[in-house]
Amino acid sequence: MPTSTLLDIDLYLKEKTDWIDKQIFRFMPASDSPAIGRLIESVNYSLRAGGKRIRPILMLATAECFGDSTEHLLPAMAAVEMIHTYSLIHDDLPSMDNDDLRRGQPTNHKKYGEATAILAGDALMTYAYEVVVRYTDRTRVNPRIVLQVVQELGQATGVFGMVGGQMMDLYYEKHTMPNAAELVREIHQRKTGALIRAAVRIGAVLMQCTQIQLDQLTIYANHLGLAFQIVDDILDVECTPEELGKSTGSDEARAKLTYPAVYGLEPAKSLARDQGKLALAALDQFNGHVDTLRVLTEHIVARRK
Amino acid sequence: MPTSTLLDIDLYLKEKTDWIDKQIFRFMPASDSPAIGRLIESVNYSLRAGGKRIRPILMLATAECFGDSTEHLLPAMAAVEMIHTYSLIHDDLPSMDNDDLRRGQPTNHKKYGEATAILAGDALMTYAYEVVVRYTDRTRVNPRIVLQVVQELGQATGVFGMVGGQMMDLYYEKHTMPNAAELVREIHQRKTGALIRAAVRIGAVLMQCTQIQLDQLTIYANHLGLAFQIVDDILDVECTPEELGKSTGSDEARAKLTYPAVYGLEPAKSLARDQGKLALAALDQFNGHVDTLRVLTEHIVARRK
Repeated sequence: MPTSTLLDIDLYLKEKTDWIDKQIFRFMPASDSPAIGRLIESVNYSLRAGGKRIRPILMLATAECFGDSTEHLLPAMAAVEMIHTYSLIHDDLPSMDNDDLRRGQPTNHKKYGEATAILAGDALMTYAYEVVVRYTDRTRVNPRIVLQVVQELGQATGVFGMVGGQMMDLYYEKHTMPNAAELVREIHQRKTGALIRAAVRIGAVLMQCTQIQLDQLTIYANHLGLAFQIVDDILDVECTPEELGKSTGSDEARAKLTYPAVYGLEPAKSLARDQGKLALAALDQFNGHVDTLRVLTEHIVARRK
Repeated sequence: MPTSTLLDIDLYLKEKTDWIDKQIFRFMPASDSPAIGRLIESVNYSLRAGGKRIRPILMLATAECFGDSTEHLLPAMAAVEMIHTYSLIHDDLPSMDNDDLRRGQPTNHKKYGEATAILAGDALMTYAYEVVVRYTDRTRVNPRIVLQVVQELGQATGVFGMVGGQMMDLYYEKHTMPNAAELVREIHQRKTGALIRAAVRIGAVLMQCTQIQLDQLTIYANHLGLAFQIVDDILDVECTPEELGKSTGSDEARAKLTYPAVYGLEPAKSLARDQGKLALAALDQFNGHVDTLRVLTEHIVARRK
């Protein structure tokens, strides 16, 4: 696939990440109140810590399959990153994964205290919906499509999505289950996969895709989301905290259900590659400009952080 | 106002509360997964504990000013109660108000643990948006109006609403502030008032009110919300935990900014009555069938639990 090599993925990612970083803070409010100001500061702290922005980038790259006019995606791109950030803040809490380090910085509750961290997560989640409704409305997207975006976010992040996945993740800690292979797949699909799938689907929905196109991209996103999380599991085993900017080895320490734990490290790597191939195969079925998505997928599977 | 006395408020509240209690669980999902099942159980536990359902009842009574056909309000009524319940679960957490008792039962984290309680709150908030979008859509409400409902909920509960109010509430604990009177009003307006106002406004918006009607009802709701929370402050001082079904005296123990703390008990009672009168005066300006709202307002100001 020679087209793939035309795209300099590192340059693409840097450009898009810089752009998203700049845009996302245009949505953030300010306040003169010391208390509310501190809450916003803690929200911005976690947003600013700057992850890979992989979800908004995937949304954008999906939309680019359909055309170039993607300015109206911005609110949804910000929203998906806000929701992802809220989930990290809550997951890091002492009663959850009790992590001190995230993206090379102290976690939100380490810096601002537990109460503020809980509220920062709550505020981010709420704000994500507000941003989608308020700003997408201004970009004259059909209200039915905006409602579909809200629904995609809700389904991806509720009891049967991200929050349910986190519950399973905690519930099965330190338990050796006979059906571990099935469970770890389900946990990953809910906890990480669902929001990645939503990012891809929202990108397509906002470009007014057909149902067939949406179905094809959903299959792609399901494989990609699983590949992404298996790679995450592997990096938690192989990397140092310095390389990754967060605590590593914590999955093993907490006896989490992960692919390396269930299958072993080398088989897990092989399974990640398999899911990556299945994602690429799904793209082959898709009739559109998938070059960027293709390179992005290869990058996600091969990434070292 | 002789019409007021035609309504048996206790009977009205009992009928509506029973109806809401029955309807709200029709929206709740079920799961065979032990982990997700436990999360849903903890969500239902807090929802079922059954408060006064004052927010959905206010939404309904507001809609009844415009006509009798209020079936399409149900998703929004459920949503506002879900959001209220999520806020109680998170506010009760050890790092926040650290309350053991709520509505006569152990608080969610006391029964299910802290991690599950945080996730139950997250799930409830997410589900509230999903319910509004999914079910309101089925009732053929104009999508623009559904989006307005989502926006009302977001604004009422975000950094400048409920979550911001909770942040202020914690921030000013144990601090004697020179501008305490101003601060306690702002805290109450954000923490409690905003969602009560949203309930009233959503009831009107779903009945396709005019902007003037919305403005009038907003003034009403602002006074009512403040009256409601001042009465809450007073009951925390005057009642036993048995009477109220939750820990009492905790505001004083935590040196919270409340109306009795700032003004003294008797002046606080007088201020609550004043806000109640202002709410009723705002209703007098409103050209519609406000009898139910009027009696409800009198009940809220005079309530003893």
